[in-house]
Formats: sequence, C-alpha cells, structure tokens
Amino acid sequence: MPKIVDHEKRKKQIAEATWQVILHKGMEGATVRNIAKEAGLSLGALRHYFSTQDELLVYAMKLVKENAMIRVNEIIKRDLPAKEKVIQVLLEIVPINKETMAEMEVWFAFTFYARHKEDVFGVEGDGIFKGVQNVIRYLDQSGMLREGLNKDIESEKLYAIVDGIALHAMLEPHRVNKDRIIQTLRNHIDSLCVSASN
Amino acid sequence: MPKIVDHEKRKKQIAEATWQVILHKGMEGATVRNIAKEAGLSLGALRHYFSTQDELLVYAMKLVKENAMIRVNEIIKRDLPAKEKVIQVLLEIVPINKETMAEMEVWFAFTFYARHKEDVFGVEGDGIFKGVQNVIRYLDQSGMLREGLNKDIESEKLYAIVDGIALHAMLEPHRVNKDRIIQTLRNHIDSLCVSASN
Repeated sequence: MPKIVDHEKRKKQIAEATWQVILHKGMEGATVRNIAKEAGLSLGALRHYFSTQDELLVYAMKLVKENAMIRVNEIIKRDLPAKEKVIQVLLEIVPINKETMAEMEVWFAFTFYARHKEDVFGVEGDGIFKGVQNVIRYLDQSGMLREGLNKDIESEKLYAIVDGIALHAMLEPHRVNKDRIIQTLRNHIDSLCVSASN
Repeated sequence: MPKIVDHEKRKKQIAEATWQVILHKGMEGATVRNIAKEAGLSLGALRHYFSTQDELLVYAMKLVKENAMIRVNEIIKRDLPAKEKVIQVLLEIVPINKETMAEMEVWFAFTFYARHKEDVFGVEGDGIFKGVQNVIRYLDQSGMLREGLNKDIESEKLYAIVDGIALHAMLEPHRVNKDRIIQTLRNHIDSLCVSASN
C-alpha cells in the first residue's frame, strides 16, 4: 500500500528542522546533512523536497514571513480601537515570546548570510517597511494621527524602532524584555496619536 | 641594526586587516591565516602579537569602539548648540560614510558571531545604550527636553532608532542613504525638544 504523505506538510516539517538547526548551530551549521538529521529524514528523502540547500533556505524564510503575516492578519480582522490594533500588530513583529524570538534569530542569521548572495536569494526583504507605512496610514485614516507629522519620516522612524528593539531583545533579553518592549512601543504610538479619547 | 617596530601600531595594522577580511569574507573567513595574509605578515609574526584568533578579534572590536568614541568626544568638546551637538554625535554612530559603514558591518558580524560565545568574549556591549542615555540627560540639562517625557523610555526608543536605522542603512543602502538618515534623526530629536529657539 503506498504511503500517502502530505507534500506541503513534509516541506513545513523540513523548514522547522531548518530553523532548529540555525538556532542551535548558526547558518554555518545549516547544511543539508544537518537539516536532514534534525528532520529525521535521509539525505535522499530531503532532496526529494528540496534539490539544493539554497532552495530549502528560501522556503524556510518564506514560511517565517508567512507565519508572521497570518498572525498580523488575524489581528487586523479583530474589532479593536485603531491605536490598540496597531500596538497588537507591532507586537506580532517584535519578539516577545519564544516563538517570535526564534523567528527573529533565524531571520537575522539568514539576512546576514544572504546579503552577499543577492543573485541567489533576491532582495525581497521582509515587508516590514511596507507594514509600518500601512500602520501610519491606518492611524491617519482613523483620525488618530497627530497633525503636522511627516508621515514618510514617521514610517522610517517606526521601522527603525521595530527592528532596533527586536535586535536589542535578541542581544539583551534580560534588559529588553516583554514589558519593556510593550512600554516602549505604546509610548511611541501614543506620541504619534492625538491625546483625545482612546 | 635591530628594526624598531611600534608594537601598538603593528597591532592596529593587524586589526585593520581583520576588518578587511571580515568585510570581504564574513566571520567564517576571519581565520588567523587569512588575516596574516591580508596584513602581509607570516603566521608566526602575527602570533607574536596575538596568540589566539579570539584575542585578535576582541582587540579588533575594541578598536572599532575606541575609534567611534574618539570621534564622539571630539564633537562633545566643540562649541555647538545642544541640539546640534546631539545630532552630530548620533551621526558618528550610525553609518553615513564608507568608514562608519564598514565599522558597522564588522560590528554586526562580530556581535552575531560572539553572541553564543559569552564565555570567550564577555558581554561588554558597544556602550551605545549608555551613550543615548547621556544624550537624553544632556538635552534635559540643557533645558531642551520637552516636559512630561519618560526619559528612561525615550532612551530605549532612541537606542532602537539608532541601531534600527544603522541596520537598515546596511541592508538597504540605496533607500536608507545619508540624507534619509539625517532627516530621520533630526526629525526625532526635534520631536523631543522644546520648539523654542534653537
């Protein structure tokens, strides 16, 4: 009887094994051999799903991005006041729990690995700049954004705050902990918003 | 006649060779062998100055930090209005020219390399958080800081902006260029300051 294997499910399982290997051994350790071992597959079986290491890495990173997008979209659908919605969205991007911290670690490791290999990996980016532009636009359309702000520069600033605090959460997890991240992001969004109700 | 070699000068030359190797080959390529070759020294001569690779890396990173500190201290000594002084100091930390961009690249590469090796490299950090705390305190003491700001959180935020924009300048140099960095930092410092003269 032929085994029925869900192709996509197996690919996701391999991607998760890839994250684990990157987390524990860094990008240098993310060889096809190590990943196959972590996934409990033979080298041949792994090659059935991904013919090269780069193909596998690109897939694993796309999945990180997709997971974040799914979480963000769930929040967008919720019925929340504009400011609260924005803060909740930002808290899905910065690492405040083990899962998102691991994503961030993998993302940074991959970004640095890939940055001298644009020909292989393209320059798609993580979409966060577009995301923060949407956040500023959304606050504006909701009538929450203070007047006189330069929306373009506020997007750049928020983008820097999000990635900067994510970096610090990773490098100084004890000081830049969940509470500190939430307080900083709330403070910043407050500073952009009209001080009226909400 | 014995050759007189300035010990510290030679060490700095080796550190500079180390930066070059990291810039072009990444941390994986920063072997003692590659560094000796870049510095035009024999392996034996290099080992005279640094007995291990880690010792060399630590020295090279300290020099990055010292160079930045020297530039910052020169600005602090200058007779400038408080707000302008703060902006000039920040522009020595974020990469707006080839030299500081290279420092940043090396610093990031080293930080990621070293972060799982705390026992070897310690956890000294780059001192930038302390630096931005001083910036906020200085603005306050100069009477420039707006009232009602949470100085602790403003330090965290400025720290995130500085490192976040440095990261983006490295990853997206065409979009996040010198003008964009200056505009973003000026905008942020303006937002912290009283809108009176200066």
